[in-house]
Amino acid sequence: MSRESRFHILVIHGPNLGLLGQREPSVYGKKSLEQVNEALIAYANNHGGLLHIFQSNSEGDIIDRLIAEMDWLDGILINAGGYTHTSVAIRDTLAAIGKPAIEVHLSNIYAREPFRHSSLLAPVCLGQISGLGWRSYLYGLMALLDILSERADFTSS
Amino acid sequence: MSRESRFHILVIHGPNLGLLGQREPSVYGKKSLEQVNEALIAYANNHGGLLHIFQSNSEGDIIDRLIAEMDWLDGILINAGGYTHTSVAIRDTLAAIGKPAIEVHLSNIYAREPFRHSSLLAPVCLGQISGLGWRSYLYGLMALLDILSERADFTSS
Amino acid sequence: MSRESRFHILVIHGPNLGLLGQREPSVYGKKSLEQVNEALIAYANNHGGLLHIFQSNSEGDIIDRLIAEMDWLDGILINAGGYTHTSVAIRDTLAAIGKPAIEVHLSNIYAREPFRHSSLLAPVCLGQISGLGWRSYLYGLMALLDILSERADFTSS
Amino acid sequence: MSRESRFHILVIHGPNLGLLGQREPSVYGKKSLEQVNEALIAYANNHGGLLHIFQSNSEGDIIDRLIAEMDWLDGILINAGGYTHTSVAIRDTLAAIGKPAIEVHLSNIYAREPFRHSSLLAPVCLGQISGLGWRSYLYGLMALLDILSERADFTSS
Amino acid sequence: MSRESRFHILVIHGPNLGLLGQREPSVYGKKSLEQVNEALIAYANNHGGLLHIFQSNSEGDIIDRLIAEMDWLDGILINAGGYTHTSVAIRDTLAAIGKPAIEVHLSNIYAREPFRHSSLLAPVCLGQISGLGWRSYLYGLMALLDILSERADFTSS
Amino acid sequence: MSRESRFHILVIHGPNLGLLGQREPSVYGKKSLEQVNEALIAYANNHGGLLHIFQSNSEGDIIDRLIAEMDWLDGILINAGGYTHTSVAIRDTLAAIGKPAIEVHLSNIYAREPFRHSSLLAPVCLGQISGLGWRSYLYGLMALLDILSERADFTSS
Amino acid sequence: MSRESRFHILVIHGPNLGLLGQREPSVYGKKSLEQVNEALIAYANNHGGLLHIFQSNSEGDIIDRLIAEMDWLDGILINAGGYTHTSVAIRDTLAAIGKPAIEVHLSNIYAREPFRHSSLLAPVCLGQISGLGWRSYLYGLMALLDILSERADFTSS
Amino acid sequence: MSRESRFHILVIHGPNLGLLGQREPSVYGKKSLEQVNEALIAYANNHGGLLHIFQSNSEGDIIDRLIAEMDWLDGILINAGGYTHTSVAIRDTLAAIGKPAIEVHLSNIYAREPFRHSSLLAPVCLGQISGLGWRSYLYGLMALLDILSERADFTSS
Amino acid sequence: MSRESRFHILVIHGPNLGLLGQREPSVYGKKSLEQVNEALIAYANNHGGLLHIFQSNSEGDIIDRLIAEMDWLDGILINAGGYTHTSVAIRDTLAAIGKPAIEVHLSNIYAREPFRHSSLLAPVCLGQISGLGWRSYLYGLMALLDILSERADFTSS
Amino acid sequence: MSRESRFHILVIHGPNLGLLGQREPSVYGKKSLEQVNEALIAYANNHGGLLHIFQSNSEGDIIDRLIAEMDWLDGILINAGGYTHTSVAIRDTLAAIGKPAIEVHLSNIYAREPFRHSSLLAPVCLGQISGLGWRSYLYGLMALLDILSERADFTSS
Amino acid sequence: MSRESRFHILVIHGPNLGLLGQREPSVYGKKSLEQVNEALIAYANNHGGLLHIFQSNSEGDIIDRLIAEMDWLDGILINAGGYTHTSVAIRDTLAAIGKPAIEVHLSNIYAREPFRHSSLLAPVCLGQISGLGWRSYLYGLMALLDILSERADFTSS
Amino acid sequence: MSRESRFHILVIHGPNLGLLGQREPSVYGKKSLEQVNEALIAYANNHGGLLHIFQSNSEGDIIDRLIAEMDWLDGILINAGGYTHTSVAIRDTLAAIGKPAIEVHLSNIYAREPFRHSSLLAPVCLGQISGLGWRSYLYGLMALLDILSERADFTSS
Repeated sequence: MSRESRFHILVIHGPNLGLLGQREPSVYGKKSLEQVNEALIAYANNHGGLLHIFQSNSEGDIIDRLIAEMDWLDGILINAGGYTHTSVAIRDTLAAIGKPAIEVHLSNIYAREPFRHSSLLAPVCLGQISGLGWRSYLYGLMALLDILSERADFTSS
Repeated sequence: MSRESRFHILVIHGPNLGLLGQREPSVYGKKSLEQVNEALIAYANNHGGLLHIFQSNSEGDIIDRLIAEMDWLDGILINAGGYTHTSVAIRDTLAAIGKPAIEVHLSNIYAREPFRHSSLLAPVCLGQISGLGWRSYLYGLMALLDILSERADFTSS
Repeated sequence: MSRESRFHILVIHGPNLGLLGQREPSVYGKKSLEQVNEALIAYANNHGGLLHIFQSNSEGDIIDRLIAEMDWLDGILINAGGYTHTSVAIRDTLAAIGKPAIEVHLSNIYAREPFRHSSLLAPVCLGQISGLGWRSYLYGLMALLDILSERADFTSS
Repeated sequence: MSRESRFHILVIHGPNLGLLGQREPSVYGKKSLEQVNEALIAYANNHGGLLHIFQSNSEGDIIDRLIAEMDWLDGILINAGGYTHTSVAIRDTLAAIGKPAIEVHLSNIYAREPFRHSSLLAPVCLGQISGLGWRSYLYGLMALLDILSERADFTSS
Repeated sequence: MSRESRFHILVIHGPNLGLLGQREPSVYGKKSLEQVNEALIAYANNHGGLLHIFQSNSEGDIIDRLIAEMDWLDGILINAGGYTHTSVAIRDTLAAIGKPAIEVHLSNIYAREPFRHSSLLAPVCLGQISGLGWRSYLYGLMALLDILSERADFTSS
Repeated sequence: MSRESRFHILVIHGPNLGLLGQREPSVYGKKSLEQVNEALIAYANNHGGLLHIFQSNSEGDIIDRLIAEMDWLDGILINAGGYTHTSVAIRDTLAAIGKPAIEVHLSNIYAREPFRHSSLLAPVCLGQISGLGWRSYLYGLMALLDILSERADFTSS
Repeated sequence: MSRESRFHILVIHGPNLGLLGQREPSVYGKKSLEQVNEALIAYANNHGGLLHIFQSNSEGDIIDRLIAEMDWLDGILINAGGYTHTSVAIRDTLAAIGKPAIEVHLSNIYAREPFRHSSLLAPVCLGQISGLGWRSYLYGLMALLDILSERADFTSS
Repeated sequence: MSRESRFHILVIHGPNLGLLGQREPSVYGKKSLEQVNEALIAYANNHGGLLHIFQSNSEGDIIDRLIAEMDWLDGILINAGGYTHTSVAIRDTLAAIGKPAIEVHLSNIYAREPFRHSSLLAPVCLGQISGLGWRSYLYGLMALLDILSERADFTSS
Repeated sequence: MSRESRFHILVIHGPNLGLLGQREPSVYGKKSLEQVNEALIAYANNHGGLLHIFQSNSEGDIIDRLIAEMDWLDGILINAGGYTHTSVAIRDTLAAIGKPAIEVHLSNIYAREPFRHSSLLAPVCLGQISGLGWRSYLYGLMALLDILSERADFTSS
Repeated sequence: MSRESRFHILVIHGPNLGLLGQREPSVYGKKSLEQVNEALIAYANNHGGLLHIFQSNSEGDIIDRLIAEMDWLDGILINAGGYTHTSVAIRDTLAAIGKPAIEVHLSNIYAREPFRHSSLLAPVCLGQISGLGWRSYLYGLMALLDILSERADFTSS
Repeated sequence: MSRESRFHILVIHGPNLGLLGQREPSVYGKKSLEQVNEALIAYANNHGGLLHIFQSNSEGDIIDRLIAEMDWLDGILINAGGYTHTSVAIRDTLAAIGKPAIEVHLSNIYAREPFRHSSLLAPVCLGQISGLGWRSYLYGLMALLDILSERADFTSS
Repeated sequence: MSRESRFHILVIHGPNLGLLGQREPSVYGKKSLEQVNEALIAYANNHGGLLHIFQSNSEGDIIDRLIAEMDWLDGILINAGGYTHTSVAIRDTLAAIGKPAIEVHLSNIYAREPFRHSSLLAPVCLGQISGLGWRSYLYGLMALLDILSERADFTSS
């Protein structure tokens, strides 16, 4: 499959996700971020996706990266970690870019502290997946590629 | 694959979901409930799942069914519709049964009215998928089967 | 007036309304539900309406009935009783059907307990009438028939 | 029908209602205030009512008028417009007068901004009609005359 | 003791109570619903009570049953389970019937999630007993019979 | 006592206070506004006060009057009625004038509806007297004259 | 005037009021508690009142004293200090005694921190006077004696 | 039954309960506190309980007494009156002692003012009984003795 | 520049603004309302604007004036003073007129009491300027004229 | 005009403002950030201002820059974008610097989502301008220069 | 070091602190109150402090003691236990005394129930130390003595 | 004392703390950040601590640094400045690292604006010290070293 014909997906891992697998495995699972990324890349390679993956602990850097890639990307898979609940700025970036985005969470944010029950990003995303561990990313990626394919088919027909 | 070796999943469609495909396709998609069910059954058949599917507009009937099947089932896929936001009773049933449950929503409930932003069921479910149309069910089913397999592997090893 | 040329109205009486006239007449009036229904039928017969009337104490049955009649009906007159304040599911049904609905209440819900001051149904109804005793139904029926006539005149002209 | 034997109804049109028909017809309808008043007068003349009609943009003037007419009037039909949600003073006047009052609204106030969802006047009125366009006034007038007649019959019998 | 001279008590077990003893015994105790009912019947037989016992997972069925028995019954013992916190409709039924009712809960609802801290039924019941396991029912039954006896003595004297 | 040496007090009676004595005497007392005013004037004449008395149902007129008299007056006695709870504008006027003001209420506003429990005027007044019937005015006047005298003594000494 | 024919008033000074005059005179005035009491006694002696005066920093002691004097007293003048905002127990005592009580405050509690804006005692008192320094007590005493006299006149006539 | 083999119960009557029977019998019943205590003692004597009974209007004294008896007591029966809703300190004492406690209320606190709807003590008690008059104490005592017996049987077996 | 070719701006000064310059100059500045108006007129004369200026302390009069001028005016500059935070009625008028309006405030309303932090008018205005003293008006006028010119250029081109 | 005699203004453009003109022109206007900056520079050059302009998507970088320039600058013009509503840290920086700052917004933040209605920065700014598109910056710059000039005149005179 | 030259510190231990070490050592630590006091006295003796130590379970007694010692004391170290969250009266006492006070807590009150997250005392104290076990007292004492010394040095220099 | 045997403490100074001593000395004290650091280092050197000190205005950089040092450090002393109240992300980092952390504040955050009264970090810290100026750091450091020593002693014994 050629580079051009694949859907370009920007995967954003927000703050503390670099620690995946190292800390609190009972909460966040045993896979390292690297392993999660490998699984996502493997899936994308087999299903017509090309991934750019970015991890940062900084709200500003996440916005910078989203803007830097906004012309290239077809869809966004984002786990904004703690910024999910506090960042109006990332929300505004997602809204400005206007491409399909899916918000994912490793843990079930609705079974945790009340301040984790509301997401500022959710209203500007297509959908949200939470509580399914590293698979939240996988199903999110599936969904993005399925939905982009469907739209492409519709447009090209 | 024999009947016995498959994971038993109860799929619950709550109130108004019988209207799927007929009404408001721009919001809920064009597939009928029957078509969604067929897609889920096809996937289950190919991936070691056996589905019981139940649609009801009645809170009490949903509870009755969950309890009637509770010894048989290995996992629950539930779209409780409007009862998501109001039913302490269904929440209690899911908690009492104590099997893995995944909550799904066709639309992005976080981009709608404020009373749809909180789910009474979420804290007793493993995870939640919303906003991905009929595919919310599909990914939810994938997740259930993947997680049940993983647990089974772990147990049998 | 032939059956075909009349407007079809589904009248829904929610929980406890079967007790009308028997209990708490100082609050809800002395007429029985049967007498109210007779008055409504008489008015409808004289003003081009054909009524289906349904009383149930069950949220699910009310939804079932609304869906069962949704292709037949031109308008809905609904007193959802206690479900007015708690049923997201009935609200979703009314929204899905998308026909003109008028919400009525025997008592002035705004002069009672605070939890009765907000109606989940009101935003998906055309209008609301409360506090006028059994006449709340009568004026609601008048309004439905007048509005349906006006629309019909407009369409046919 | 002689002047004396008719029920005296004060009709209050609150702020901005003088603009009726001129502005935002999609929201408030095409009839001018004058046309609405004519329809109300016609109905009253045929059903034993005598109307005094008053429009003002001033909270104080509305109170003045209510007090000025309080000995004359048998019932009140009031659309207090924006003062519905903010005027403790008009509420106090209605309570002090103690005659049956019906609150009407052209638009469905429950389908608009949250600050329009609560009425300070509702608890001191007999009932409320909203969302039925200029007919909200008409049914309100019917209700007042019907209820006054019923009481009169009861008293005279 | 003859049938006629005994106090008639309707015992309502709400949603999920059929699971009693089977599930989560650490929370709800080891006795099955049947065993609880036997204990209640035994007590009633010895203390002048005659019980009708009803379990349902459906809000509407509970209302139907309350209404069906309302002429027969002298008092109500109700554990409405999850409907305790959400059912305006059951509250309205209890208020309409107007007979002494006592609300019971197996667990201490005030030591659980915040949404369980308020009961819509409490204001229309005589009293409430919570947290004493199956004995909550027993003391509730004692109280009903004691209070009914006391009133009967007072009336007959 | 000469005109010049007396303290000038503006007494403001807000909306509906013209009805005093005529309506709801059980709540507001039997004295008419005229009688209250006479009592206040008598007291003022004997204790070095000169009163200007103003009643209006209009928020704007009350502000106009306060501004018109602001150079003349030494103190303000105000019962703003329903405007107490809603008028930022009158509050701003009292703050701008900056003379000692005492807020009075006939009824105990803290034993009434919740929206009467907070006064926008209280923070810019010297003090508040409520619940003592027409005497609330009398003690308010006493307090104003006592406090003004005390300040004058202090200044002149 | 004989002891028997005088109205018996219990004056309660709550926590920290023993510091009056010593501390923060700019807020609470320069008079000591003793001086305030003398002024109240002098007034009472001249106007048919007999005072019992009690200061305590303890919620329990205030309740004990109210109960100890409840048969003797005709009215209560109470400045409960900080307990005003937190004591359900003192409120219950005042309600149980059921004699006219007037709540007073030296400072304008509505111009201070938000937690001082609501009084648990106000709804069970006849009225409230705040912000007039030591004179809040004086006018409160006047009001009690005036109201008791008026009632006595009414009863004896 | 010997002293040693009986369960030791501390009965706490909070503020204003000394007035029982004397004041507001329609709300709190006609029995005096002494009569209630006698009934409790009689029951305890016949069912293996030994009671210490303590009434105080002071939060601090209640805490002192609980601590003084904490080594002696097997269970606590507490009606904290107004302190129920305001005392974090008594809650902390009950938690520190860690013996089974049952909270009782004469009146139905859920049918009264909103500030009575939440109990700070409930989460640290085993259960709560409210609204059953003096019998709330009786059933609370029964429950304590039954539960202590059951535990003892379990331990000794 | 001829009368016809100029943009017609209605300038509304709400309650208490007549006091400008006289009172609290440290808060509101030293310029009188007359001086502010002169500065605005001078600017308008030089930049193609024609001003009608209106000050009133009455909510109703402000609405009357807005409606009276609504056919003449091209834009509105409004400082509604205290009505900013309380007037649904003025908001409705601005919405009904539908011409560009700019809301101005002399002081920084966001650095004052919480009840000044929300404006009912803001959502129906083009924009808001606060905290810049009398210049808030000046920049508001500039903005109106600039925006109207831009629109005119666009239309005429 | 020499460098030294000009007012030094730091212009801060917060997150996503680099996208100006490129995205959502209907909301934010057609001018690019560069064009806005040019217009501001042109105005400043003609009116005695010297601008430093800084855009960043990072909260920390904005704080760093404010601190780096704090000795140089005479005033601040800031559009903090999404950080307006969430950044206590930027607020603290503005307060620490203590120079006049004006907050600007392109869109009318009060006509958007509720979380945009409150600004953490507003209370530490001189004033706020919102909803006037790129001109919000222009009028903000005018205001800063006018106010700084006025102060300078006052100081130098 | 002579008595006169030492700083006088009143140490207040609020309700339940007499149980320290005896109960719940996992939460509150193993040291008894006596041991904590000894450690504080030892530190004070070595660092120029003289301690008066007072434990009480009574709000009123704590106030009494603070007032009794207020002329003697230079600083206050207070752990008000449960009264921290409920006592306006103790807050008022601390404010009236006006000497430096430091509030301490054994446990981290911010990691416990929500009602423990706000302290009524904090705003009138110099600072607060929580969560450091018995050492919270020790560091609080250090801080008081250090700050008093610093002030004394400053004054004497 | 060798490097290896000392406790490693990471000291985090959040946004704006680089300004310490330069700005607002009346609020934050006269010591510069450098002086505070020197005092902390001196103490650490004498008491078995080794400090890494880090100041940043960026939320992301603080998280980066915490993660970078997480294997090295034994404890954390953190003043997160404005991020205290808004950063879920830093909270998550502290929770993930799981080492003892103490939160410090120079000023008494509970005596300032309401948005400073809650700390997102507090529930994941051991304790909190606020309001003691630069000494808040010192006592925090003492506490960390004392607690780490105590744990070490316990472990090594």
